[in-house]
Amino acid sequence: MNKSPTVQQVEAANAKYAASFGDKGKLPLPPGRHFAVLTCMDARLDPAKYAGLAEGDAHVIRNAGGRASDDAIRSLVISYKLLGTKEFFVVHHTDCGMAFFNNQIMGDLLEKSLETAVHNGKGWKDVGKGPGSNEGKKVDWLTFTDDEKAVVEDVKRIRNHPLVPKSIPVYGYLYDVKTGKLKEIPEATAAGRAGSA
Amino acid sequence: MNKSPTVQQVEAANAKYAASFGDKGKLPLPPGRHFAVLTCMDARLDPAKYAGLAEGDAHVIRNAGGRASDDAIRSLVISYKLLGTKEFFVVHHTDCGMAFFNNQIMGDLLEKSLETAVHNGKGWKDVGKGPGSNEGKKVDWLTFTDDEKAVVEDVKRIRNHPLVPKSIPVYGYLYDVKTGKLKEIPEATAAGRAGSA
Repeated sequence: MNKSPTVQQVEAANAKYAASFGDKGKLPLPPGRHFAVLTCMDARLDPAKYAGLAEGDAHVIRNAGGRASDDAIRSLVISYKLLGTKEFFVVHHTDCGMAFFNNQIMGDLLEKSLETAVHNGKGWKDVGKGPGSNEGKKVDWLTFTDDEKAVVEDVKRIRNHPLVPKSIPVYGYLYDVKTGKLKEIPEATAAGRAGSA
Repeated sequence: MNKSPTVQQVEAANAKYAASFGDKGKLPLPPGRHFAVLTCMDARLDPAKYAGLAEGDAHVIRNAGGRASDDAIRSLVISYKLLGTKEFFVVHHTDCGMAFFNNQIMGDLLEKSLETAVHNGKGWKDVGKGPGSNEGKKVDWLTFTDDEKAVVEDVKRIRNHPLVPKSIPVYGYLYDVKTGKLKEIPEATAAGRAGSA
């Protein structure tokens, strides 16, 4: 089968990267700088760039919203328990898509159609045809309404999780997509202090 | 409170990045190249570099193993349903930590101590002191034993998920940490073909 333009571009970019891979093939598995970052999947975010990470430095966990989901916590626990990280960063961002819908909206949209919906500035309009599914009503989509409060909430969830040792500090930040700047959320970082729970 | 050396380094790297942010503050929320990548949190992987992504191009979802967990699928469904991606890449890698333990080992290690364990070449040795927790026995850690089969499994899980439309192709790749090269897993990509389920 023919490869799509996107697949061809990704493969070409990869060939170029591999051609100048240098000594990176010798990097060990555990993160050299002993920390992990939990952040959003948003396309505008490049955590390696915004936090200054080279290959081999740190674990990066990403999902919709950078939320402290059970799966993110599974990853963080593996990160410290087996691979020796000692600090966790939770980094959400401004203008996050997770503030533009909620469980009700998403469940309704998916029930009508699985295809992509369009936001017309006021709300979501489902332009897709074809089958929908009510499975979307059973999912917690982990949306939020206040970006700074969501950081505090996620730092607290990690801090208070029974599998996260009290010795690991958890820091909370909000990344500004307009400026590229990380802003610490003091309430989050205070809540995530080692030994604070 | 004083900031740790890691926090100081991250903040300094961020200030440098923000200082040359240029026009990136004008990027729209939806990914410009209309695709999403699901890959591992491993520190050696930089998906922006190995797949040639600039800020604004693509969603990147990462967890321990790059597994198609419920949370990864939550993120992928948000990616296409609300933000218009049209192709998904699942990218695991060689020498993945997820092949070096299993649910039994992890549950036992966490029951003894939450602190970091050490792998002595033959198996895991728990050197940590302090309290453990049996909560680790309730978690599916999503480990695997065969890296290529795990890619096929994850592509199939996404392909067959009731909230993923049949129109989206799902590709499977294995990234070689020794060379930086992406290798397509034909069985995965075939199973993930649009309309194949």
